[in-house]
Amino acid sequence: MIKKQLLALVFVCGIILPATAQTWIWYPGDYEMWLGNKMNNHRTDRGAFFPPFWKQDSHYVTVEFSKTVELVQPETITIATEGKYNIKLDGKMQFGMPSKFTLPAGKHHLNIKVHNQATPPALYVDGTTIKSGSDWKVTYEDKEWIDESGKASDTSTTLYMDAGSWNFNDINSCPSAFTLKQQPQEAIAVKHLKEGTLYDFGKETFGYPVLHHLSGNGTVHIYYGESPEEAQDKAHCETLDKIQVENGQVIDLATNNRVALADSYTLGNSKAFRYIYIETEGSNCSLNNVSMQYEYMPETYKGSFRCNDEEINKMWNVGAYTLQLTTREFFIDGIKRDRWVWSGDAVQSYLMNYYLFFDNDEVKRTTWLLGGKPPVTSHINTIMDYTFYWFIGIYNYYLYSGDKHFVQQIYPRMQSLMQYVLGRTDADGMVEGQAGDWVFVDWADGYLDKHGQLSLEQVLFCRSLETMATCARLSGDKEAESKYTHMADALRAKLIPYFWNEQKKALVHNRIDGKQSTSVTRYANMFAILFDYLNKDQQNTVKKSVLLNDSIMHISTPYMRFYELESLCDMGQQSQVLKEMKAYWGGMLREGATTFWEKYNPDEHGTQHLAMYGRPYGKSLCHAWGASPLYLLGKYYLGVQPTKPGYEEYEVKPVLGGLKWMEGSVPTPYGLIKVKMTKSQVTVSSDGGKGTLVVTRKGKIEHIAIPVGKELTVKL
Amino acid sequence: MIKKQLLALVFVCGIILPATAQTWIWYPGDYEMWLGNKMNNHRTDRGAFFPPFWKQDSHYVTVEFSKTVELVQPETITIATEGKYNIKLDGKMQFGMPSKFTLPAGKHHLNIKVHNQATPPALYVDGTTIKSGSDWKVTYEDKEWIDESGKASDTSTTLYMDAGSWNFNDINSCPSAFTLKQQPQEAIAVKHLKEGTLYDFGKETFGYPVLHHLSGNGTVHIYYGESPEEAQDKAHCETLDKIQVENGQVIDLATNNRVALADSYTLGNSKAFRYIYIETEGSNCSLNNVSMQYEYMPETYKGSFRCNDEEINKMWNVGAYTLQLTTREFFIDGIKRDRWVWSGDAVQSYLMNYYLFFDNDEVKRTTWLLGGKPPVTSHINTIMDYTFYWFIGIYNYYLYSGDKHFVQQIYPRMQSLMQYVLGRTDADGMVEGQAGDWVFVDWADGYLDKHGQLSLEQVLFCRSLETMATCARLSGDKEAESKYTHMADALRAKLIPYFWNEQKKALVHNRIDGKQSTSVTRYANMFAILFDYLNKDQQNTVKKSVLLNDSIMHISTPYMRFYELESLCDMGQQSQVLKEMKAYWGGMLREGATTFWEKYNPDEHGTQHLAMYGRPYGKSLCHAWGASPLYLLGKYYLGVQPTKPGYEEYEVKPVLGGLKWMEGSVPTPYGLIKVKMTKSQVTVSSDGGKGTLVVTRKGKIEHIAIPVGKELTVKL
Repeated sequence: MIKKQLLALVFVCGIILPATAQTWIWYPGDYEMWLGNKMNNHRTDRGAFFPPFWKQDSHYVTVEFSKTVELVQPETITIATEGKYNIKLDGKMQFGMPSKFTLPAGKHHLNIKVHNQATPPALYVDGTTIKSGSDWKVTYEDKEWIDESGKASDTSTTLYMDAGSWNFNDINSCPSAFTLKQQPQEAIAVKHLKEGTLYDFGKETFGYPVLHHLSGNGTVHIYYGESPEEAQDKAHCETLDKIQVENGQVIDLATNNRVALADSYTLGNSKAFRYIYIETEGSNCSLNNVSMQYEYMPETYKGSFRCNDEEINKMWNVGAYTLQLTTREFFIDGIKRDRWVWSGDAVQSYLMNYYLFFDNDEVKRTTWLLGGKPPVTSHINTIMDYTFYWFIGIYNYYLYSGDKHFVQQIYPRMQSLMQYVLGRTDADGMVEGQAGDWVFVDWADGYLDKHGQLSLEQVLFCRSLETMATCARLSGDKEAESKYTHMADALRAKLIPYFWNEQKKALVHNRIDGKQSTSVTRYANMFAILFDYLNKDQQNTVKKSVLLNDSIMHISTPYMRFYELESLCDMGQQSQVLKEMKAYWGGMLREGATTFWEKYNPDEHGTQHLAMYGRPYGKSLCHAWGASPLYLLGKYYLGVQPTKPGYEEYEVKPVLGGLKWMEGSVPTPYGLIKVKMTKSQVTVSSDGGKGTLVVTRKGKIEHIAIPVGKELTVKL
Repeated sequence: MIKKQLLALVFVCGIILPATAQTWIWYPGDYEMWLGNKMNNHRTDRGAFFPPFWKQDSHYVTVEFSKTVELVQPETITIATEGKYNIKLDGKMQFGMPSKFTLPAGKHHLNIKVHNQATPPALYVDGTTIKSGSDWKVTYEDKEWIDESGKASDTSTTLYMDAGSWNFNDINSCPSAFTLKQQPQEAIAVKHLKEGTLYDFGKETFGYPVLHHLSGNGTVHIYYGESPEEAQDKAHCETLDKIQVENGQVIDLATNNRVALADSYTLGNSKAFRYIYIETEGSNCSLNNVSMQYEYMPETYKGSFRCNDEEINKMWNVGAYTLQLTTREFFIDGIKRDRWVWSGDAVQSYLMNYYLFFDNDEVKRTTWLLGGKPPVTSHINTIMDYTFYWFIGIYNYYLYSGDKHFVQQIYPRMQSLMQYVLGRTDADGMVEGQAGDWVFVDWADGYLDKHGQLSLEQVLFCRSLETMATCARLSGDKEAESKYTHMADALRAKLIPYFWNEQKKALVHNRIDGKQSTSVTRYANMFAILFDYLNKDQQNTVKKSVLLNDSIMHISTPYMRFYELESLCDMGQQSQVLKEMKAYWGGMLREGATTFWEKYNPDEHGTQHLAMYGRPYGKSLCHAWGASPLYLLGKYYLGVQPTKPGYEEYEVKPVLGGLKWMEGSVPTPYGLIKVKMTKSQVTVSSDGGKGTLVVTRKGKIEHIAIPVGKELTVKL
């Protein structure tokens, strides 16, 4: 088993991430927040606009971009911006906003200031040697004034960051114009009912409905459903649209937008659905078909998994499609309802992403958006646990990507958030929910006490402090490294004395007024295993007393089953977990799921599965956190995981766990690690990194070095 | 003399400021910052865009507006917004974005959430009884989530503010469309020179140049001057424009904007000038006249002053015009160069405003903009002293307006800024310039040491702490009131022991490493008089040893002459000050000033007066801080000033100071106070407030109550 303590990360990753050059650049995090605002403000609830209830931050409206260049010969650069701008060469401002500018040979300081209130100031520079990229410095405040004599101020304390970027490498693809990709899709079945028509698109999908050959005058009612029941329940379906056809115009009654009637009309806001139910009202108002523009983030499935069990294969495929649908501008929760970025959901998407897309930009964008800007006025998404998952997500990102540069860039925001948390601790140095804090934990099918010191919250807090120490070190902040290390150690030392109950043989759920409650839940216990906060004996005890104990409240969200099953895998219980996966995710598949759900209770039946939040169709049937088999199969069956940041070193410890054979691939910064296993042999290949195959032969654990670029086959 | 200690303000002002109703509303400060960004980013320097060098904040992109209403009968409201929105009645979201909405009779909670990334979310509601106004609550983060059962969270700790507004009372005048007023003006003289043409608009002015009958193909060079020298010095004038006439199009070469050639072409960015010099280049490129669209903020001259001395009368008029030109969307510094909002400049505009326009909205807008949003990352405008003037400006605003509500609204921002200041104090609890801080003091014609503890900065800091204590009390924050009172007392107690030098009979300029410097400047001494930090003996000593001592470095900015002369007036030296005004502001008038300047050194001659910052025309010839006679004549000659907030009580202590007669009016929240004085009698009238006329008859000071609404005449 891997030593999971953060000390494993002291070695700086060997991979040098190249500075992206000749790409649109901006103040790091700013474009991400702007795009996030756009996305988070697209939610609707039965035709009403439904924005988030937390603070949404904005971009800095004036940003200075700068670079020092050394030119052997004069160079003419092409400049494009989003916003009005000026150019300063060696401190001298130039006339106007030229799209071409020539620098003489020699060493020069080039500064370009861009102002834009509506969208993030962005810059694109292209020359023979001078190209905009992450090696440009940016600031929102250069503090450069001139004194009475015309002398410029000392700007040595001005805070400069490295420019942010993504993949806008073409001068014409300016960042604010970004859109997801689209492609047309048709319904696979159309059912004409008494009052209207039901279109079935065959599986859960997302996009813009297209109404064909609208005519007459009247109203078209459009009801969406992840299930046929929802689409046809006009009074309760979660999303709907209403349009008016009137004198050659189409009016969207939710947004009041108008366009001229044409062959087809595409709705303005994308929706999630499998079914669309249409009713028309008014004289001769009709349409003859509904299709859609499927909207998606282009992602490549780099990871793969196949085995002898077709149910597991289907589970992996449905998981991958679930993650594809919820991987949009950012990693979102689910596509039907919130379509918001939630930190606790995102941290799981990140982990699944490392076994499917390995899309680092998506992780970074989501992390910037969630982190927001100071001042911190609430927990992330208002949820205390979600604040902690944000820190943990950065730790995981560094482990999988080796991207130290990102850690250094986001570190100031981490400090602000941790300062907020530390400003709200109690006399024990522990966190308790205060008025305005949402202590979430899980959507449980039973009472979860949210009062006092919750053991789960302390465990997550402790891991966050450890993450702060790691990131402080990576950022060269020795003082903070030492401070956070001490705080983490102190908190960790209290976990057992405060929460361990020898009768229950478990960490209890919470403490109120210094007294342990009698309640035991799975949450803190499974995380304490994952984070190595329990010793081997305690782990084995907890396995029996909690994880495999049927009298402890069952978890019915894939969200927390993720960690529950991971902790079991972590203790080598893959065979048990395979059964659990087949019962739980297999259960959803048997209920006809085409994507995985927000919540699933095997004891419920029929339309009970659709209800949540007191609403008959409140549940999301395509929820990112539903897709965890992707992660479990890659990490604990194929058995691939980094042991040093960015797969500089890694381990492959394949476990069939009841399968006859399996094969698959896991993406890394170097390329792929491929694993194929039967009961009699294992074959591994790798594109880079120092790998170790861990296999058990004749009851003995063996460690075998994995060569780069050629297959290693080991007989078992 | 009025007791100037802040304790005078413990009484809550008796004037109830009515909640403005049926007006466009927004999150307080947000529209102000957005409009401020627009204005501060209009500066140009010889055709280059020149934005501020400090952090510019933005509006919250999603704002919730709410109100609880009690309706006797159902009511239909009209709703307009800037941004997309939803409506929630008693917690239930309504379909779409209706412009009309009917509430049933009874008690209801109405919530409207508006989202707008580009411009501040704004709302206008009009009904029979329900009208948008400052009695609506706003938040950027309601923290209202729902739990699994659909129950809404406890939002009792959500931070709500009162909605901000100005004067957008019409549904069609949405805030983001605000523009200043314009009117056409013609040049009063045109001079055809060898290479070009010089247009003289007769006096300093501001607006959009209009070029008439442009024709041909080629370039038109437009050079602006506050002086004829500047306009004709193509290589050194501070502002210029260049346009291209080409194939029926006009291209602004600074902004790349293009329009079709028409009868006249109006430049896109407004400029300050008295003179415009035009040269054309290219085949047949010509124009036949240049006029302008004068751009201004509509203000009413409520204050007035007239006396027997025509030079003083001209001084008052030129001062009023200077303040008119620099009173734009906000109080700016000067109209030619920066056109930015600077705190040290603004605090003087506020004071002059109280004696001319009494435009409270302009003060509040400027204060919101300068205060910015947390986190505080630098002093206001990067200048330490400017941070302190911001606090002092709020104190003065409360004194003149009695607007306690504004104090309460801005108080959280005051706390953030003071926290920043307190985080940077030294072991003595004093402020010293740190790297990145601009310690400004003044543009002096000699060396000013900016190192160590400057006495001026401590005096301003102390007054700021006193202001914090006052505003904490007005906001009901007793703990902070006590804290700031103690801090102010402690700092004040150190001023004499640390800075008083018995040999110099003055406060020395600064202390470095615990040792007094030998330098004495006027700054701290005059402020210490104004703030009553010196006792009567010390004041009289300083008057001789510093203020009337020719060997102490003279002040050559109207900026610091403002306080210098005020401190002399404060000690009853009006006769001396009258002479100084005639020498100094009279000096500028004799040099042909049509507005007052940024700096004036009577020892300089000719074009020396135009130079500053090492540039031949660097000086601004229309600078708000030049207009201080407006304030001095109103406060210390007419002698009118509030003694309780908002003129609930006030004093009229007229002093001819060498004049034969004078008459004038001073605006108050109640209307006007009119004063007329000859050597033999004083006549006063007032529209409200409890006034006291203070006159000296036969060597004895008498206090006479001023009746409301009828004239009081007192023989001297």
